Amino acid sequence: MAVNLDKLPKEERLGRLRHSASHVMAEAVLTIFPDAKLAIGPPIDTGFYYDFDLPRPLTMDDLQVIEERMRESIAHDHPFVQTLVDKDEARRLFAQQPYKLELIDELPQDEVSTFRHGEFVDMCAGPHAASTGQVRAFKLTSVAGAYWRGDERRPMLQRIYGALFETEEELAEYLHKLEEAQRRDHRRLGRELDLFSFHEEFGPGLVYWHPKGGRIRTICEDLWRQEHLKAGYDLVYTPHVGKAALWETSGHLDFYRENMFPSMDSEGQEYFVKPMNCPFHIQIYRSSTRSYRELPLRLAELGTVYRYERSGVLHGLMRVRGFTQDDAHIFCRPDQLEDEIVRAVEFGIYFLRLFGFQDYQVYLSTRPEKYVGDLEQWDRATDALREAVQSRGLPYEIDEGGGVFYGPKIDIHVRDAIGRAWQLTTIQFDFNLPERFDLAFIGQDGREHRPYMVHRALLGSMERFLGVLLEHYAGAFPVWLAPVQAVVIPISDRHLEYAAWVAAELDAAGLRVQVDDRSERMQAKIRDAQLQKVPYMLVVGDKEQEAKAVAVRLRSGEDLGPVHIEEFLLRAVDEVRERR
Amino acid sequence: MAVNLDKLPKEERLGRLRHSASHVMAEAVLTIFPDAKLAIGPPIDTGFYYDFDLPRPLTMDDLQVIEERMRESIAHDHPFVQTLVDKDEARRLFAQQPYKLELIDELPQDEVSTFRHGEFVDMCAGPHAASTGQVRAFKLTSVAGAYWRGDERRPMLQRIYGALFETEEELAEYLHKLEEAQRRDHRRLGRELDLFSFHEEFGPGLVYWHPKGGRIRTICEDLWRQEHLKAGYDLVYTPHVGKAALWETSGHLDFYRENMFPSMDSEGQEYFVKPMNCPFHIQIYRSSTRSYRELPLRLAELGTVYRYERSGVLHGLMRVRGFTQDDAHIFCRPDQLEDEIVRAVEFGIYFLRLFGFQDYQVYLSTRPEKYVGDLEQWDRATDALREAVQSRGLPYEIDEGGGVFYGPKIDIHVRDAIGRAWQLTTIQFDFNLPERFDLAFIGQDGREHRPYMVHRALLGSMERFLGVLLEHYAGAFPVWLAPVQAVVIPISDRHLEYAAWVAAELDAAGLRVQVDDRSERMQAKIRDAQLQKVPYMLVVGDKEQEAKAVAVRLRSGEDLGPVHIEEFLLRAVDEVRERR
Repeated sequence: MAVNLDKLPKEERLGRLRHSASHVMAEAVLTIFPDAKLAIGPPIDTGFYYDFDLPRPLTMDDLQVIEERMRESIAHDHPFVQTLVDKDEARRLFAQQPYKLELIDELPQDEVSTFRHGEFVDMCAGPHAASTGQVRAFKLTSVAGAYWRGDERRPMLQRIYGALFETEEELAEYLHKLEEAQRRDHRRLGRELDLFSFHEEFGPGLVYWHPKGGRIRTICEDLWRQEHLKAGYDLVYTPHVGKAALWETSGHLDFYRENMFPSMDSEGQEYFVKPMNCPFHIQIYRSSTRSYRELPLRLAELGTVYRYERSGVLHGLMRVRGFTQDDAHIFCRPDQLEDEIVRAVEFGIYFLRLFGFQDYQVYLSTRPEKYVGDLEQWDRATDALREAVQSRGLPYEIDEGGGVFYGPKIDIHVRDAIGRAWQLTTIQFDFNLPERFDLAFIGQDGREHRPYMVHRALLGSMERFLGVLLEHYAGAFPVWLAPVQAVVIPISDRHLEYAAWVAAELDAAGLRVQVDDRSERMQAKIRDAQLQKVPYMLVVGDKEQEAKAVAVRLRSGEDLGPVHIEEFLLRAVDEVRERR
Repeated sequence: MAVNLDKLPKEERLGRLRHSASHVMAEAVLTIFPDAKLAIGPPIDTGFYYDFDLPRPLTMDDLQVIEERMRESIAHDHPFVQTLVDKDEARRLFAQQPYKLELIDELPQDEVSTFRHGEFVDMCAGPHAASTGQVRAFKLTSVAGAYWRGDERRPMLQRIYGALFETEEELAEYLHKLEEAQRRDHRRLGRELDLFSFHEEFGPGLVYWHPKGGRIRTICEDLWRQEHLKAGYDLVYTPHVGKAALWETSGHLDFYRENMFPSMDSEGQEYFVKPMNCPFHIQIYRSSTRSYRELPLRLAELGTVYRYERSGVLHGLMRVRGFTQDDAHIFCRPDQLEDEIVRAVEFGIYFLRLFGFQDYQVYLSTRPEKYVGDLEQWDRATDALREAVQSRGLPYEIDEGGGVFYGPKIDIHVRDAIGRAWQLTTIQFDFNLPERFDLAFIGQDGREHRPYMVHRALLGSMERFLGVLLEHYAGAFPVWLAPVQAVVIPISDRHLEYAAWVAAELDAAGLRVQVDDRSERMQAKIRDAQLQKVPYMLVVGDKEQEAKAVAVRLRSGEDLGPVHIEEFLLRAVDEVRERR
């Protein structure tokens, strides 16, 4: 009994088509590799994938061939037929498929659902399209390694990804976006622009910032420090390790241990590398009796923390094991709460704008089912968060029950240049740690009160933020952030001296400049500077030398022609100052 | 046979007097605590000490009493008499003294030397003064805990320190200096000025920088970064942890493991918190093929390292377990060597001067008996170091054989305000790591060559350097370094508004200012600001308000009287800019 796809909601229709395409792909793979072992092949948001155990690694050419075979199966318009069998029958059907056998063994019921189209049978609960002919706008996009069941100790399989949409137009749009995302992939750009590296053999997920990447990071951190001091924050510095007692009191050893690096044991003393800065800032708060007059206390630190993420989930700068949070903890009185939240939200948005993100969305996450603290506190804090975004006239969405167990929070997501959303700023209440560490301040009434505590990070972490920035700008950083702002390119060796003079002028104006004095052709030098995404190429020859000028070329390829050095300096310095 | 002390060189004469005083002190202690167990009592640079196992902790009053008893023994002018006995006889003599018995057991020879004066006998090789009467200009100064044989697992003893000099004048001068050093003790100042804290229970030797200490540190680090960028260094950032493989290759697991924090073990992966930054900087060097054109490469990082120092040797900021080195590694060609050393030495001295150290001494340490690398390299490097200090016309001393096993080095010691020497800058060659990590660059000849590698730290570590600065200035930092540069003190509540206006003017001029708006008397506020060593106290009342002025008072107590706000701003801003 064939289903009428057109009558289904779009989402379900697409789900069936994508799932069906994954079966068609498995069929095609088996015709090429008859010994292929099949794992699982579900639909996903943008298409489908299937995991295979194959005799050799696949190439992009293989994908081409697989795709052709798929189109043949589609041309045959085989109907999808479901058959229910018992486990014994299923074991016979999939006798050559060890991964399927493992899944059959784990099924709670004896009934096993299978779907057949043409000669191909898969163990599958469905649902599917009526026939292979309904599968149309699709394309195989990539192949990647994936552990069987996501477990590092199980075999590494090959996962083929396919994209599938309802129309060729939608597919084309998606593929364009995918290509754009690949062009912007921060891992590739990081290598090409020589910004950072990872050294798996000495520890995965640990970033080494090279000179140019370090230059960008220093610019961001300097700005961060300056703005925080201006905004009434205090900069503190705390250790990267602490004894078990600290993590017991904070509760991290109870509810966070699996994310922490293993302990360091010495003669009964157990130390841990910190996964969070909070317990340390709390010690600073506790280092003296605090009066109501001292609050709010805003302790900020570019604090590097370490979390033992599974190596399977690590991803460039976006998901790492060591990262530097742009962290702060605000300790305040109840009457200061709203004002502090408004300030933090505004400060976050100020930073996102500084770095060129104009498009953002605010989310307010409320009390989850499991929580600590009393209801009144939660209501008060949630109200303060709501008031803060409303008073700023910010559109926001409520994530009902999406808060952390220790308090409600505000997250800000930005949209990057190709429309992807990234969560950066987070502002979180904490009703847990002030209790655990018994924090207090002496009120105007002379008695002890419990302060409110707010965790906040504006950029998230320097690593992830620079990854996002890199993808947002596709490596072509605005002048103020570019590690090298200008390359001076002498046309021939007799212009070397003038090139050096030009560079010295730029340097004196505080610009970051290099002279390309290699004995390459000018065009090659221009191409290299363009690949390095240097904002300004300053070509200098006889004419320029005579006129104390530079021939300005932008990385876009645009030629501004000869400009007097003074004029260029004014322009560039202004651009840096205005952060344009 | 009495020795004629006057005929001995001063050093030996003082050594004998100091040693004799320690015997006299032990005699005195035994008269007060007949059950006291004696450990050892040697002469030291400024006097002597003796370690005792006593039934109760000593107070300063006890020292007074002990000193009186000593003067009695001195008045008796007992001669010191040496007697040689065999071990059995020695064991009988010291039957009540378990520490002495332990020492006797370990003596290689059977002959034991003893010294007697009056009723008191000690096991001692001497030499001593002729008689107790020769001991004159001395004073017991302090008592401190000390482990028997410096071993944390052995009993904690009480060590009494005494000062002893040839004349009462020299003694008085030393005691004055000692008092001055105590007044400047950075641990006390750190507490009083609320700069930093330690939290033993969460790990000894780990510094928590409070807002005001953090402010000073940020000023220093900002300056450090700016100056390093100007000087052609690249700022890099590297992880705080690395897998065992890194430390095996670097050799640290072989020759440095006991100084490292214990390992973190996870599923056969062994990680270590870094005790040094070098292996990480080397990975950055190795991340691409280096050409001779890229050298010198100067990689700098404010890199926080962790070393598991014995808890007994920890001392405030001066000796800690976690510290931030102002580290850099210079990779250069042989022909760049001398120039790089000259630059590094000059850069070091430039920094020391910036921070107010005018008096320094350069030490050049040459090849020790055990070394790596070939002789020619050592000679070349040592020559480069010598040339560098000579060309700068710097006076220097040679520490023959005092280099590290991996290369010769230059150290710069500064003298602080009370004449104490501190080693800060160090510039060290390394012939070891380039070999171990097989570093190379492609020369102009197209072939691989080994680069030279130089480690250098100018300030040493931020922690120790700020400790030295704190003692050098006795907490009264120059204006540009002071965490709070001015406190505005309104005479009464009706001047609060004007005080706020004054503070806003200072703030707008980039000055760090606070308003003391507590309802205390003006004198109390001035006293508090003075105790906090704030450079400027700006008192404002009716007269000042009318004239847009501030009555300026310095922390020295000097009164500058009323000054127009504009004039004050000019003065203070200038002082900060000139780092006076």
